[in-house]
Amino acid sequence: MSSPSSPSSPPAGLVQKLFQYIDLHQDEFVQTLKEWVAVESVSVQPVPRLTQELLRMMALAAAALRRLGARVDLVDSGSQQLPDGQTLPIPPIILAELGDEPKKPTVCFYGHLDVQPAAQADGWLTDPFVLTEVDGKLYGRGATDNKGPVLAWINAVSAFRALEEDLPVNVKFVLEGMEEAGSVALEELVKREKDGFFSRVDCIVISDNLWLSQRPALIYGTRGNSYFTVEVKCRDQDFHSGTFGGILNEPMADLVALLGSLTDASGRILVPGIYDHVAPVTEEERELYAATDLDLAEFRRSAQVKKFLFDTKEEILMHLWRYPSLSIHGIEGAFAEPGMKTVVPGRVTGKFSIRLVPHMDPPVVERQVKQHLQRVFSGRKSSNHMAVSMALGLRPWVAGLEDSQYLAGKRAIETVFGTEPDMIRDGSTIPIAQIFQDVLQKRVLMLPLGAVDDGEHSQNEKINRRNYIEGSKVFAAFFLEMARLHEQRQHCPA
Amino acid sequence: MSSPSSPSSPPAGLVQKLFQYIDLHQDEFVQTLKEWVAVESVSVQPVPRLTQELLRMMALAAAALRRLGARVDLVDSGSQQLPDGQTLPIPPIILAELGDEPKKPTVCFYGHLDVQPAAQADGWLTDPFVLTEVDGKLYGRGATDNKGPVLAWINAVSAFRALEEDLPVNVKFVLEGMEEAGSVALEELVKREKDGFFSRVDCIVISDNLWLSQRPALIYGTRGNSYFTVEVKCRDQDFHSGTFGGILNEPMADLVALLGSLTDASGRILVPGIYDHVAPVTEEERELYAATDLDLAEFRRSAQVKKFLFDTKEEILMHLWRYPSLSIHGIEGAFAEPGMKTVVPGRVTGKFSIRLVPHMDPPVVERQVKQHLQRVFSGRKSSNHMAVSMALGLRPWVAGLEDSQYLAGKRAIETVFGTEPDMIRDGSTIPIAQIFQDVLQKRVLMLPLGAVDDGEHSQNEKINRRNYIEGSKVFAAFFLEMARLHEQRQHCPA
Repeated sequence: MSSPSSPSSPPAGLVQKLFQYIDLHQDEFVQTLKEWVAVESVSVQPVPRLTQELLRMMALAAAALRRLGARVDLVDSGSQQLPDGQTLPIPPIILAELGDEPKKPTVCFYGHLDVQPAAQADGWLTDPFVLTEVDGKLYGRGATDNKGPVLAWINAVSAFRALEEDLPVNVKFVLEGMEEAGSVALEELVKREKDGFFSRVDCIVISDNLWLSQRPALIYGTRGNSYFTVEVKCRDQDFHSGTFGGILNEPMADLVALLGSLTDASGRILVPGIYDHVAPVTEEERELYAATDLDLAEFRRSAQVKKFLFDTKEEILMHLWRYPSLSIHGIEGAFAEPGMKTVVPGRVTGKFSIRLVPHMDPPVVERQVKQHLQRVFSGRKSSNHMAVSMALGLRPWVAGLEDSQYLAGKRAIETVFGTEPDMIRDGSTIPIAQIFQDVLQKRVLMLPLGAVDDGEHSQNEKINRRNYIEGSKVFAAFFLEMARLHEQRQHCPA
Repeated sequence: MSSPSSPSSPPAGLVQKLFQYIDLHQDEFVQTLKEWVAVESVSVQPVPRLTQELLRMMALAAAALRRLGARVDLVDSGSQQLPDGQTLPIPPIILAELGDEPKKPTVCFYGHLDVQPAAQADGWLTDPFVLTEVDGKLYGRGATDNKGPVLAWINAVSAFRALEEDLPVNVKFVLEGMEEAGSVALEELVKREKDGFFSRVDCIVISDNLWLSQRPALIYGTRGNSYFTVEVKCRDQDFHSGTFGGILNEPMADLVALLGSLTDASGRILVPGIYDHVAPVTEEERELYAATDLDLAEFRRSAQVKKFLFDTKEEILMHLWRYPSLSIHGIEGAFAEPGMKTVVPGRVTGKFSIRLVPHMDPPVVERQVKQHLQRVFSGRKSSNHMAVSMALGLRPWVAGLEDSQYLAGKRAIETVFGTEPDMIRDGSTIPIAQIFQDVLQKRVLMLPLGAVDDGEHSQNEKINRRNYIEGSKVFAAFFLEMARLHEQRQHCPA
């Protein structure tokens, strides 16, 4: 491993030139982000209109990559059959490459162009699909998750191209449109291209998370996720609560009892056995949490949360990163709109998910949850029908901190921000990291650009202009650092 | 009280002529119902588009009444302020009258032209706003609740007019557009017009319920309703379940616990004191339930319910009519759409209602529910904020069975259907009945036209063509019976 004070730093003049180019062209970069945010590329609600938007988004990205000079494949991903029998295409996955020089390292960027649903009526202050800048904040669905970071990488490459500077790395892109819906079809493609597109890749960079504080960060682990639906059905139609209230096992009463049995008031998961496979906390790990930069008061303020379940930094970080959590997302089939409706819903589906940590395994969790819900339901002696399903089961991921891509990322951040990054985990799920590591045996770097208050998945999602533009610089610097470490390794093999 | 075998029956020739006219013009009557169903006059979701539809519906009804020759007032009802500060007009209430002869009795028909929300995506087999006939069933939102019955009354009057027969009663109409939203503004109008429009009214007829079986019915009581919202708030925005799952008091967990504390698995309400004011069951009452015609197997089949909470006819009728019930309607603010969304909702509002029976009083119920929820919530020691509100509190109603309007209704049904009606109650709420009785001291008759399987408030609402057309005849016969009883009473005062 090279020492941080290695003499062969990238030439300062080139770095300055690149950074200046990025600063001068920042309004163009914001304009492109605006065009991308304007596409309502929602993947989790498979309907024809949104599928069209997804296809349009992939075509837009392919065009941008071709303008860089990349060779771009739009790989057909087949189609998905919906529960109602309808068939919709899965958006193609973009595989693109720029440069193929054996002497240079090959860095592959993974990103996604699909977004979570958003509607202004849910509490957005601006149209979620019109990127709107207020006080240096660029508001819009997908601004930080993940369209902004994808463009930051493209901006970095474009700076080299525009300045006619030699790109110090071969660059590959894997861009998909189904990340929010569980990266359908991507795993299969990765397996198929293991000895093809991915064979010469040295490391894979993912920028699909957030910093923990105002300080830049590198991420070395993510939680997995198991997403459950539990349907309780009396009949397909709803009832009038006057005409039938009092003589029915109401599906909502059953469902509320089932969902209420999942956690206690302190957030602890009540599914028997669920904590059995959680890795014990080591002493080294405790030290890592103690060293992490987190201003609790500021975290609370930026999150706009009066009080968390825990009072210390260590407890909070561990419950976000290395313990499982269970969240109830909502209920489909009940009355969810404003106003009053005196309906007894006939069939309702509760949705909840459990974030998984090493060494929890989705099939085991699935069995535990199903057994638990079946026991609670049969205890109610309800005449309704219950069906539990695990719609998604994604394993957690942890990286090796000593790898060269982490060193390169660390230096790039130091160059741009003048500060060391926090080494952190992320409580959310980047299933593709696990797949890259398991299937390809490739190293992964998670280099987040977004600030802690970006609000990914929520109303008023944004990316700061500063994070977007400085992030583009970090990627440019990262290319130079990766090339330098590669060269050093070739001169002095470990 | 006249004996049923009274010699002065209405002339058989006239009855036959009226019935024949109605039979011959039934397709026209269905066509008008189709035009009325096509108006999306939803009152419970106050938005400008639907308010426009409501106003259009009231204008359509006013025009139909004017064609009958009625004098029609559209009484301004003011406006409502929504929680967001927006102001929308409340649809005007129609007061109409036809005939003013002091020798004739005056019957006033109350009906409503607003409907429950409906969307084909909720499971309708046809467009809910396109009346569609399948096997003698007329499917469409509002077909049975309450546009069909309003038109049946108009059809009955139009038969007399078209045949140039003297209308044996003076007829008044009160038609409103806010029934599903709690009859806002109607009570005030009723109070104001007590000595005006309503002064000479002999009885008020309401046809806003359903039969209990395949047998026609008269209804002598309805339950009241208290509609509650309980909001749990952490912050206005949602959270990402990866980024925040594990360290929050999640509002959905609190809300599910609150809603789960309301009833046990057998449907019994767990709010302390709630049963204290329920009238004790008398022996006479028990006999009435035992005598009521209800084929339990058929009821289950038509309701498409595998099993009810109770096994005997008596228990089922008492739990629908004379015991309170609690139904959870849904949750606003959580993820309610198809697909997967890994959101932690930041602010959620549960909606439930309690159907009230004599002698429960809405303000008392409100206090009991609030105390109960506050106790459960404080037991959770959550850092969230809870707010409980009773959005609606409507008292139950019970009628006197010996009144002349019940006798006239009974005879009209016998004439048309050749069978005695069931004397039943209704589990749903017709608040206006209570208002008419309390404020005006007028007698009320509830004469339902719809069949037990009409599905009011649910998907695939319908009215049978037979019920709609024979119902028009029942109203025509009712006019004649009321006139006859009136005449008898004038000759032999009690």
